Order: sequence, then C-alpha cells, then structure tokens
Amino acid sequence: MKAFKILEIKESVFKNNNQQADLLRAELKEKKVFLLNLMSSPGSGKTTTLTKLIPLLQKDLKVGVMEADIDSDVDAVTIEKTGAKVIQLHTGGMCHLDADMTRQGMNGLGVDDIDVVILENVGNLVCPAEFDTGSVKNAMILSVPEGDDKPLKYPLMFTICDLLLINKIDVLEHFDFDVNKCKERALKLNPNIKIIEISSRTGFGVEEASQWLLAQVKQWGEY
Amino acid sequence: MKAFKILEIKESVFKNNNQQADLLRAELKEKKVFLLNLMSSPGSGKTTTLTKLIPLLQKDLKVGVMEADIDSDVDAVTIEKTGAKVIQLHTGGMCHLDADMTRQGMNGLGVDDIDVVILENVGNLVCPAEFDTGSVKNAMILSVPEGDDKPLKYPLMFTICDLLLINKIDVLEHFDFDVNKCKERALKLNPNIKIIEISSRTGFGVEEASQWLLAQVKQWGEY
Repeated sequence: MKAFKILEIKESVFKNNNQQADLLRAELKEKKVFLLNLMSSPGSGKTTTLTKLIPLLQKDLKVGVMEADIDSDVDAVTIEKTGAKVIQLHTGGMCHLDADMTRQGMNGLGVDDIDVVILENVGNLVCPAEFDTGSVKNAMILSVPEGDDKPLKYPLMFTICDLLLINKIDVLEHFDFDVNKCKERALKLNPNIKIIEISSRTGFGVEEASQWLLAQVKQWGEY
Repeated sequence: MKAFKILEIKESVFKNNNQQADLLRAELKEKKVFLLNLMSSPGSGKTTTLTKLIPLLQKDLKVGVMEADIDSDVDAVTIEKTGAKVIQLHTGGMCHLDADMTRQGMNGLGVDDIDVVILENVGNLVCPAEFDTGSVKNAMILSVPEGDDKPLKYPLMFTICDLLLINKIDVLEHFDFDVNKCKERALKLNPNIKIIEISSRTGFGVEEASQWLLAQVKQWGEY
C-alpha cells in the first residue's frame, strides 16, 4: 500500500491568482479534465463522503483525488483504498490552495488518464473561499453538528459554491439544526446553489450527489 | 437589547506581531486583566460553551467577551443574555486576529471594570494558531463529530493551546470517536495541555473548566 506520492507544495510566485486560475481552467477544458474543489470545516466529512462518492463515479469516470493537508497522510491512505488515483499535498502550514498550488498538485498527480479530479482542500471555511483554484465547480460540505447559522457567519464560502452537501443528516435528531432555515440562509446568499442532504456514513443522498457531478463533468467534456 | 457595540477591526500596521503581543500582555499584567483566546473549527460549540461557563465565572469574576466573526452578530446577541460585557468584532474577511486587532477589540470593549476577557476567535483551526493575540492563555475546543484525527491534521493548534475542551461528549455513542486516541495524539504534540471532556449542551464538565480558568486568572492577578 501507500503507492501514492506526498508532494510538498511551494508558495506561489504569481501575483495575479485569478489570471492563473483562468489559465488552468482553459488547459483543463482543452484536456477534457474536470476539477472539483471540495471545501468544508475540519471534520465535516469530506474524506468519508469521497469514499462513498468515488465508487459511484467510477462506473462512468476515471477519478483522481488530491488530498491537501497541513500535515499527515491519513486521508490519502483512506482514499487510496477506493482505487482512485491519489496524491497527498502538504501545504507547509498554508491554510488554502491557490491556482498555482493546485497546478503543482495536478502535475504531481498526473491527469492525462483522468476524467475528474477532486481537490479535497484544507479544512477551513474562511481562507479557501478567497482563492480561485482554477476548479470548474466548487462544492462545500456543512455537517449538521456545526449548526444552521453557518451561512450567516461564513457567507463568502456559501456564495462561491455551486453545490452544498448537508452531511451527517443521520444524526439530525440529536442536534438543534433547522434544515429549512439553513437552506433558506444559503439560498439567500446564493440562489443558484444546489443543495443535497447526505449521510456519508449511511450513504444516503450520495447517489444524487454523484448524478449532479456526473452531469457537470459530461457538460464540461461534451461527451 | 443589543446594547453591545459592533466594531469593524482594521488591518494591523505592525510588522512584528510577537512584540505587539508581548506588549499587550505586559499591559494586561499591569491592569490585572486576564485574556483567554478561545479557538476552534466553525460549529465546535464555542458560543454555547461560553453561555454555560460565564455564569460559573461570574460568581467570582467580572467577565467580558469579544466575539470575532467575519460577519453577523448572532454570537454577541447570545452572549449578551449572560450579562457579560460583550463586543462584536468584525474582521472584514480576515481569518484570524493578531495582537493589534485584539488590542483594538479590548479598547472597544473597555476592560477597566473587567477581570477576565474571553476572545472568541474566528472559527478556524489553521490561521489563528499562527498569531499570538497577546492572550495570557490559549484554549481550544474540539467536538466529537469532528473526529479524533484532528491533532494529526492541525498539529500547530494543539501545540500552542494550554487547554483542550473535548465538546459534545453527550453524543459520543453516535460517532466513531476514540477519546483515548484523541488525548494521546494531543498529548504527544503538547505534554502540558490540560484536557477536559465537556458537553456544552448538558453542562457536563463545564464546572471543571471554570475551576481551571479561575485558577489561571487568580495566578495572573495574584489576588
């Protein structure tokens, strides 16, 4: 096991991140590679969700995963078991990835044999929202134990995401979390955001999430 | 209600944050004011814990709270009901507070009539760990739903904290969280960290946390 690489990401030298992000997206379009940027707080269930989502995607797509973390490789070890192509990125203490750092990761992973790359960003609801990674779509996870007030307190993240997965819905009865209020608050910030309730533990809702992603990937690659 | 101020924090002009932090701590020592910097991921239960902790502290101490958020004032509204002196700080998108920003908050709150000020930092396990706020002690909350692997993934936060509250212990049976493993991992990073299991919902363990804090405050003020 542990066939994956661990890559120490270097700090970007580019001043204009938006330009770098557009450039990366154009190259991905050319190669027909889709990049999803997956963000959330620490512990919302990004990795567990991916272990359920990847096998569904693999029916139609070749999947690659970039695991970005300050330290450790526990997530890459977990993801490797799905059979997805995986690389562990270490950010050297940095709290987010920008487009150049993402490009370093893509180069390290190697994407010529991949249809969809999922970037599991550093667990953080603040900084990753401020940097365009060059992704085609942005997705976020909010888990029930975190509370339904998070769109009020971290509005930018909800504004820049195309997909919101409300995770740990299986423990809803044990928490004071109003699903409708949460959805209203997210939609007020971002009327176009797609919202799906899931449980990464039971697998509930993950099929719907995979269908959403498959449709996006097909549209991007036009195949 | 809503007697509290909302202060828009300005970006710091000081290059040497550590120097500013030491200066602030020296002034606090002089004034016999204790500052606790409370950090965690979004949704770990900082505010709910404070609503349980503050009434216990108020038996012996005059308590002030600085609520730092990107946006909204929902936490300050909640804390005001405890009778603590409170101010809402807006960080203008910034993901952490440094010593100068903390000083702006202290000046806005007014601390001459206060024994202990609690700074509820921005919900983020990464960036706040990198900036000394000038606090006397650092505390963090990790909640059970976030997972017992967080010390592996966000080591700096566990390294710089004096107190770790393991929150939401009342829902332990619904999650795969190994309390002993979590403690071992935290203690490996930081053998001096004090660890207390709590439930901010039921109040379990909060008395022990308040006793810990009271002892720190008394030692600081030497009274």
